[in-house]
Amino acid sequence: MQTIRVGIIGASGYSGLELTKLLGRHPGVALSFATSDRWVGQPVAERTGTHASQNYVSVEVGLEQAEGCQVVFLATPAESSLELAPKLLARGAVVIDLAGSFRLKDLSLYPPFYKFEHPAPELVSRATYGLPELFREDFKAVQLVANPGCYATAAALSVAPLLKAGLIEVSSVVINAASGVSGAGRKVSEDFTFMEVEGDFRAYRTLNHQHVPEIRQTLSRVAGTDVTVVFTPHLLPMKRGILSTAVARLRGGVTQGQVAEAFQASYAKEPLITLLKGADQVRIADVAHTARALIGATSDGHHVVSVCAIDNLLKGAASQAVQNMNLRFGFRETEGLL
Amino acid sequence: MQTIRVGIIGASGYSGLELTKLLGRHPGVALSFATSDRWVGQPVAERTGTHASQNYVSVEVGLEQAEGCQVVFLATPAESSLELAPKLLARGAVVIDLAGSFRLKDLSLYPPFYKFEHPAPELVSRATYGLPELFREDFKAVQLVANPGCYATAAALSVAPLLKAGLIEVSSVVINAASGVSGAGRKVSEDFTFMEVEGDFRAYRTLNHQHVPEIRQTLSRVAGTDVTVVFTPHLLPMKRGILSTAVARLRGGVTQGQVAEAFQASYAKEPLITLLKGADQVRIADVAHTARALIGATSDGHHVVSVCAIDNLLKGAASQAVQNMNLRFGFRETEGLL
Amino acid sequence: MQTIRVGIIGASGYSGLELTKLLGRHPGVALSFATSDRWVGQPVAERTGTHASQNYVSVEVGLEQAEGCQVVFLATPAESSLELAPKLLARGAVVIDLAGSFRLKDLSLYPPFYKFEHPAPELVSRATYGLPELFREDFKAVQLVANPGCYATAAALSVAPLLKAGLIEVSSVVINAASGVSGAGRKVSEDFTFMEVEGDFRAYRTLNHQHVPEIRQTLSRVAGTDVTVVFTPHLLPMKRGILSTAVARLRGGVTQGQVAEAFQASYAKEPLITLLKGADQVRIADVAHTARALIGATSDGHHVVSVCAIDNLLKGAASQAVQNMNLRFGFRETEGLL
Amino acid sequence: MQTIRVGIIGASGYSGLELTKLLGRHPGVALSFATSDRWVGQPVAERTGTHASQNYVSVEVGLEQAEGCQVVFLATPAESSLELAPKLLARGAVVIDLAGSFRLKDLSLYPPFYKFEHPAPELVSRATYGLPELFREDFKAVQLVANPGCYATAAALSVAPLLKAGLIEVSSVVINAASGVSGAGRKVSEDFTFMEVEGDFRAYRTLNHQHVPEIRQTLSRVAGTDVTVVFTPHLLPMKRGILSTAVARLRGGVTQGQVAEAFQASYAKEPLITLLKGADQVRIADVAHTARALIGATSDGHHVVSVCAIDNLLKGAASQAVQNMNLRFGFRETEGLL
Repeated sequence: MQTIRVGIIGASGYSGLELTKLLGRHPGVALSFATSDRWVGQPVAERTGTHASQNYVSVEVGLEQAEGCQVVFLATPAESSLELAPKLLARGAVVIDLAGSFRLKDLSLYPPFYKFEHPAPELVSRATYGLPELFREDFKAVQLVANPGCYATAAALSVAPLLKAGLIEVSSVVINAASGVSGAGRKVSEDFTFMEVEGDFRAYRTLNHQHVPEIRQTLSRVAGTDVTVVFTPHLLPMKRGILSTAVARLRGGVTQGQVAEAFQASYAKEPLITLLKGADQVRIADVAHTARALIGATSDGHHVVSVCAIDNLLKGAASQAVQNMNLRFGFRETEGLL
Repeated sequence: MQTIRVGIIGASGYSGLELTKLLGRHPGVALSFATSDRWVGQPVAERTGTHASQNYVSVEVGLEQAEGCQVVFLATPAESSLELAPKLLARGAVVIDLAGSFRLKDLSLYPPFYKFEHPAPELVSRATYGLPELFREDFKAVQLVANPGCYATAAALSVAPLLKAGLIEVSSVVINAASGVSGAGRKVSEDFTFMEVEGDFRAYRTLNHQHVPEIRQTLSRVAGTDVTVVFTPHLLPMKRGILSTAVARLRGGVTQGQVAEAFQASYAKEPLITLLKGADQVRIADVAHTARALIGATSDGHHVVSVCAIDNLLKGAASQAVQNMNLRFGFRETEGLL
Repeated sequence: MQTIRVGIIGASGYSGLELTKLLGRHPGVALSFATSDRWVGQPVAERTGTHASQNYVSVEVGLEQAEGCQVVFLATPAESSLELAPKLLARGAVVIDLAGSFRLKDLSLYPPFYKFEHPAPELVSRATYGLPELFREDFKAVQLVANPGCYATAAALSVAPLLKAGLIEVSSVVINAASGVSGAGRKVSEDFTFMEVEGDFRAYRTLNHQHVPEIRQTLSRVAGTDVTVVFTPHLLPMKRGILSTAVARLRGGVTQGQVAEAFQASYAKEPLITLLKGADQVRIADVAHTARALIGATSDGHHVVSVCAIDNLLKGAASQAVQNMNLRFGFRETEGLL
Repeated sequence: MQTIRVGIIGASGYSGLELTKLLGRHPGVALSFATSDRWVGQPVAERTGTHASQNYVSVEVGLEQAEGCQVVFLATPAESSLELAPKLLARGAVVIDLAGSFRLKDLSLYPPFYKFEHPAPELVSRATYGLPELFREDFKAVQLVANPGCYATAAALSVAPLLKAGLIEVSSVVINAASGVSGAGRKVSEDFTFMEVEGDFRAYRTLNHQHVPEIRQTLSRVAGTDVTVVFTPHLLPMKRGILSTAVARLRGGVTQGQVAEAFQASYAKEPLITLLKGADQVRIADVAHTARALIGATSDGHHVVSVCAIDNLLKGAASQAVQNMNLRFGFRETEGLL
């Protein structure tokens, strides 16, 4: 097996930490550097429980060490990744961005949903949206990968087969999803204290979440037509995992068998997707700490309910980034992930 | 204040226990008896932390003591309440049934959703559905109250004002709800062990829950026309509380102001409903251990998302039963509940 | 029943909020004012779910309104209660201080454990330590009550009977305790985020907690001799409740019967203490949201393990404060608490 | 690297499942079989997320396949491992028993603590107690490894260095420990339902837990003299992890420096033990899902508090079993564990 040199910028966020653990155990990876402001100077091995020999470094030091890297991961806030991606690409590294800065092709959506005018439209057009199960054919000579959002991954995976097969009305999709608290990152605010979260459940960013245009972009591409989506995320009193429950109206005459076939046709050979017999079989507990997605759908002749569970930090972030790296560099797609 | 004599059958289930606590502190209530197979002979005071002087008795003893009671609550499985309600009504007691045996007016719905042919159709037609905020005018000389289901209460309260005001398309209602584990009762099965529930979230009885026809019955009555509902319940890793998130398509031209007015018109004077400014403000944590419902809606010109939170054991069961008792016997509606 | 006018300073902390709820339902209390910086101007009824008609006010306004109050509760940080207590006493109010500023009789202990030189030694000597089950005889014409600490309440109640009866070696007491997160107050720091607390358990302030001298003071008074204590508190991933597990070496020849008798002799008549048959029967779940303490001890001829569970916000703070008020003003001791 | 063939009996218990995952990723292991009554016929890959190609088999089939195995792990109840161990040893396999059936050298302790007379005393005497950090010298030509108990591992590791260095009084050791619910195995009883465990904390088997003689045996061997221990386990509302808090009286004149040195002397070179600067730094969250133990001690001239955290299913069971296999077969001790 080849060995590639990789760097990680933003290694102390929850996604960055998971990413560092995964890369630390990947047999084809030599970790070049991992940056963290909060842990600079501390051993990577201590935080990750791996054999890594490096200490965390500052972003500045990381940028210097990026020279020799084939790939650098950005697990930073969006503003930082906007600034860092061009510098890293200029150094010849493949960039896999977990921050969301390059996911949306329609530049007009950044101001309302990300609160900035996009400064690098040409990078947006070069970026590949890294959702292999739907768009694996895009991974050729990719230099910049926009790693999908956690909700966007779960929601799109659960609905795409129904649209591909033309089974549902494209204006009827209602998605409710719920995420563990790690989805919010290392935020220290009263909203995310144990006292506020434990024993609670609530919706947030109703009709206004930044993953809505991302889900819509993916589903519209799959459907070949404009798909509308009402998406309501909720906060769960647990650390990790996402469950996405999509409801859609079936086109007339669509049978349960057709629904099942649509999912088989899309995912039967996917190594990281497990199809279950119905919506009720899909559970967060079965995907936490894994790189897999579980998907199951139940229908009744009028509607279909399709549920997907993933670990928001893994298939929703870090393991999907590694999966994308594997694809880009010719490793087995599940290398280091099972 | 008058004092009425009350009995409780099924006092050791989670709803029955909450009911016993509420009645033990109600200033107009003298507890006559509380039945519990598992705790028979033990002091009610010990389990409830109240001043109650009785010990738990068997159902048989309870039925004897029901002679002198003005009201008896049934917090039993549906099969038991079907058998007990006629006996108690024959003894002259008002019966408030928390079991679900008399909620549905359409007798054809009992076999598919409750797994029995209803043995007492005349009681079904006499029963009053006890959701005061929507149907308070029904509470006259009531003898049999069908206390609403927990999901059905939350779902109906959040959608009814929109239908009353004619703001949404009646075939577009999609409701996702999530409940704490107490909703399942004292079930001892692997599904409800700590190891299976903690850190998990999943849908269950997708497209098949027994509260679907109940929600539909309530909303159709309110709308004056047939309302369809897709309802998906989920299990939360917490003890108590329900959050119901309803999504519906607005009729053309409906404004945010009209949505807000609809909720004001329905609930501004309700002592046990608090209206919040949007869907995101509604939280389970703020209603746990209370008799209140919180409701908030957010709309965007195309869709409305309306969220309701209740404590499933209180407004979803025990405190609503007491509220119904208060109405029937002329107490202040919130007596013993704030 | 008489009605007394009461004020609360610090009504938005977790203990202050519970206190406001309890007082809002106490039949002998008219709430005069409740102060809260964060909620000033908001209705007390909304936060507490009670019928209270006031809005929260600032401390300054509260001090003015204290003129007509028979009793004012201080649920503030220690520095504030040090400043406010003399002013309130000067206005003629009985002061019940939940802050810890007047608990220790030995003035030399404030600097190491509370980080201040005590500015009012004469108030320390006038203050009554408000632990009724051990020192009820102290409640005569009290003007200043030092409400005990949460750990100190649980730990002292579980060990005192053994010392009273002379059954254990006074230098052998080892206490481990664990508390829900509300014990830390409304702290917004990374340590108390959901992500850090959930799924975790750890010791803190090992050999250095401010309740150590308080426990020692209480136990030494009960024993009539100096008692040493090693006390290690732990943080539980839950909101409320304390379990204190005390281990001590029995004096030679002490039997299980003598141990049981010692607890009976101390607590058989206590309305807020329930004695259980052994250490294993004592659970936090059975005291959460109640004013009670559960106590059980198991011994084997060599050692005794005595366990006590309380709700840290109630018997460990707010309900004990109300219990102390009840005693001071001649109400039934459990009024408003069951 | 060599490849050894291994079998697992009892692969669907929580420890057995973790063990199957670890062995499925171990580069020197070829899984021969895994038995599970509940999952027989199902793919191992599905339950473990590994590349394993087998299906679960019955114990009978497993025993047949054990012929070609170098090592078989027993993750069964004690009664089963008593019966199976001799059969497997007769087939020439090394047996690593996680069940507890061979841990105690003193045969008189099995009846009171394990409820059986030991049927194979000669195997007890041949068995090696598999706690490498304390007894690595025992691992020579071992055929039967008694894998330590979870509490026993944490408790012994935290106290042993103090005894080795002669720093504490041997009759003064008081240990309180708390475990996640997985420690109880897949028990389906009301005690382990979510409703009973969530929000609760309690002691159990006070003065009577089966790990007491095991801890005592280990500490007495280390001390070279009889060590008494009072041990009280508690149940935490979380899935996995153990924290053990040991308190002991220091011998006269022992300094903080000597305490720190004792731990350094014992563990500085241990690859799976991380020493922290004090008791407060040790957290379950930092060891969950890892093979490591964290240890920290705080002392004050009179007493020492020594805390150890492990994952009860890993260092307390499955990863320690793999660590023992690694030692026995000449792999790097941490192979497959970091």
